[in-house]
Amino acid sequence: MALIVQKYGGTSVGSVERIKNVAQRVLATRQGGHDVVVVVSAMAGETNRLVSLAQQIAEMPDERERDVLLASGEQASTALLALAIKDLGQPARSFLGHQIRIETDSAYGKARIKSIDSSRILQVLKDGEIVVVAGFQGVDEADNITTLGRGGSDTSAVAVAAALNASVCEIYTDVDGVYTTDPGICPGARKLSRISYEEMIEMASLGAKVLQIRSVELAMKFNVPVHVRSSFTDTEGTWLVEEDQSMDSLLVSAVTCDRDEAKITLVKVPDRPGLAAQVFTPIAEANIVVDMIIQNASADGTTDLTFTVPKADYKKAISLVEKTAPAIQAEGIRVDPKISKVSIVGVGMRTHAGVAAKMFEVLAREGINIEMISTSEIKISVVINEKYTELAVRVLHEALIERQGNL
Amino acid sequence: MALIVQKYGGTSVGSVERIKNVAQRVLATRQGGHDVVVVVSAMAGETNRLVSLAQQIAEMPDERERDVLLASGEQASTALLALAIKDLGQPARSFLGHQIRIETDSAYGKARIKSIDSSRILQVLKDGEIVVVAGFQGVDEADNITTLGRGGSDTSAVAVAAALNASVCEIYTDVDGVYTTDPGICPGARKLSRISYEEMIEMASLGAKVLQIRSVELAMKFNVPVHVRSSFTDTEGTWLVEEDQSMDSLLVSAVTCDRDEAKITLVKVPDRPGLAAQVFTPIAEANIVVDMIIQNASADGTTDLTFTVPKADYKKAISLVEKTAPAIQAEGIRVDPKISKVSIVGVGMRTHAGVAAKMFEVLAREGINIEMISTSEIKISVVINEKYTELAVRVLHEALIERQGNL
Repeated sequence: MALIVQKYGGTSVGSVERIKNVAQRVLATRQGGHDVVVVVSAMAGETNRLVSLAQQIAEMPDERERDVLLASGEQASTALLALAIKDLGQPARSFLGHQIRIETDSAYGKARIKSIDSSRILQVLKDGEIVVVAGFQGVDEADNITTLGRGGSDTSAVAVAAALNASVCEIYTDVDGVYTTDPGICPGARKLSRISYEEMIEMASLGAKVLQIRSVELAMKFNVPVHVRSSFTDTEGTWLVEEDQSMDSLLVSAVTCDRDEAKITLVKVPDRPGLAAQVFTPIAEANIVVDMIIQNASADGTTDLTFTVPKADYKKAISLVEKTAPAIQAEGIRVDPKISKVSIVGVGMRTHAGVAAKMFEVLAREGINIEMISTSEIKISVVINEKYTELAVRVLHEALIERQGNL
Repeated sequence: MALIVQKYGGTSVGSVERIKNVAQRVLATRQGGHDVVVVVSAMAGETNRLVSLAQQIAEMPDERERDVLLASGEQASTALLALAIKDLGQPARSFLGHQIRIETDSAYGKARIKSIDSSRILQVLKDGEIVVVAGFQGVDEADNITTLGRGGSDTSAVAVAAALNASVCEIYTDVDGVYTTDPGICPGARKLSRISYEEMIEMASLGAKVLQIRSVELAMKFNVPVHVRSSFTDTEGTWLVEEDQSMDSLLVSAVTCDRDEAKITLVKVPDRPGLAAQVFTPIAEANIVVDMIIQNASADGTTDLTFTVPKADYKKAISLVEKTAPAIQAEGIRVDPKISKVSIVGVGMRTHAGVAAKMFEVLAREGINIEMISTSEIKISVVINEKYTELAVRVLHEALIERQGNL
């Protein structure tokens, strides 16, 4: 008898029928002799409906109240799932963030979980009941309601699993696992049976939208086995586990792409110490996350400074840079929102040279110009013209995953 | 500078535009130099939407989870109003039931407030902020979410006003006050400028749907002045206050009617001690509230026992009575759902005789047969055939209120 945490996303609880379907699944797990804790997102569309209400009220809604508003979505779906499970004759009990004290910091809209009081959950499980926990929400030290950001229910689920030392955290979603790349772009994409936490973190930060990145970091930190799978089938999905020897044999695990960034270049800036700080401090203060940064000094003592920011923050970033430009004597500003970041990820890269060269060669063969490059131990990202996104993903997937033996 | 509690019902916050309108009102009160605490219902239609979702999930939804579900409606409207007030540049802060510990008993769906922790509200008021409190909801001792039943936000508002010792509790609704009778039935109906708590309690229990009866009981207990008024106009509404001398001059304050009851008669029951207990114990155990009871012994040693129950519980009551009937040797059961209860209410009745006689005379003149009579110190109710409801209300209003001098 194991303790299993299951998380169901908005699509999985998107209608009365689907909620009943989830209740059946939960019951089946329980009847398999396991203790079950279920973490639920808001019904599909509900969060967007609430966001839209907030925006009709105020152009820049107050963050504290916005979180109170958004948390009501998970409150409703959690109650509905508990109702559905009880209607099948199985005792169940819902808990909101404040009831099991999912304590977070006070960063409204993107709060981080600090602790969970597992005692009440454990007592209810001991009484033979199924526990249904509202995802996405918590309370800060002063009992203010907080939310964890888009995809936050994944993080709730992993945190609950970690707090309870659960055997597995099953993430039920509308896809049946993690793929080597987007099957909509590349017909050769295939489901990974296992992937390491680190690879998954890279993938999440590179545009693969399966899991909230924070949830994977938590899973890695507390070594929680995560099983990503579909709520519509019984097929085995993808397991997120610790890296092991056998993974080395896969040189590249996945190809991802991200069209949500834009590129800004400060042209011909006189190169001197402190330049980068002058440019990036105001941007950081505006809470804009800069992703890639490239600086290339030329012989004439000037340098081009290029960086990428989320498209959503693009205009705000430009207006900040326009203020900085005169002070640092930049010759001009070049902007390009029509870019995309294509990346390859794989723990195998740690021990194999030549992957980067192969990647550049494959892209060159197709005449795709590389505008920026960024690497880590287990990934290589390139920024290219947006229009080549699908082509680049396809040729990289073919060359580096489908024909991996030929490398 | 006074402390004013304002309660806005579902219609008053039924749309984004109306929420903004309420925010303006709240701000105007604040700018008048007052501290303001606002209590909010769910947006009109929202509670019904949630009830319907629950019923699609389960025919008999679990009460604990149903309350968690329903409470989400007030959570959303409370956050939206706080957003709207802040958007006008006025600091504001929302509180849910658990955040200011509106502690209730554990009677899900009809919980009663036991205490409120006013310290946090007072602190926020002291900081110059407006406090927005979610109506209708609380938590029990074990932190389970509870709701107070239909109209429960009125009770939340009065309880908050009592806890804060507020100068007034303003109940904003879609009518502009308490009327002598339903203006839809009787063109001569007029708004009362003042009414005593006790009269209002009688009216609420007699079918006038302006306020939840529990809220008036609370207001009376803690002597909270309540001002019932419209959120769409600035007109003065009706004040609920302690009874005073001047009220005596009004013999009858209001005429009400209630079509939500049904009548059940046990025919020719051998009259003996313990009969009533045998009949009503199973009905009470089924949580059915019996309103009027009449028993008339005849010379032959049998008696007819007649009583009324809410129409919603009518069929359940009949099936219980059918089980009891053989044991008490009743000759038969007669049932009549097509009845209505018409009542006159007024503290002046305490000191004046002849009001009942006048009432019966007025009805007799119209050929309206009286099937049951029930009286208290300040009200007289009669049960009549449902089809005469409007007629009875009109003639009673004319005779006892419009031409009161002629009595």
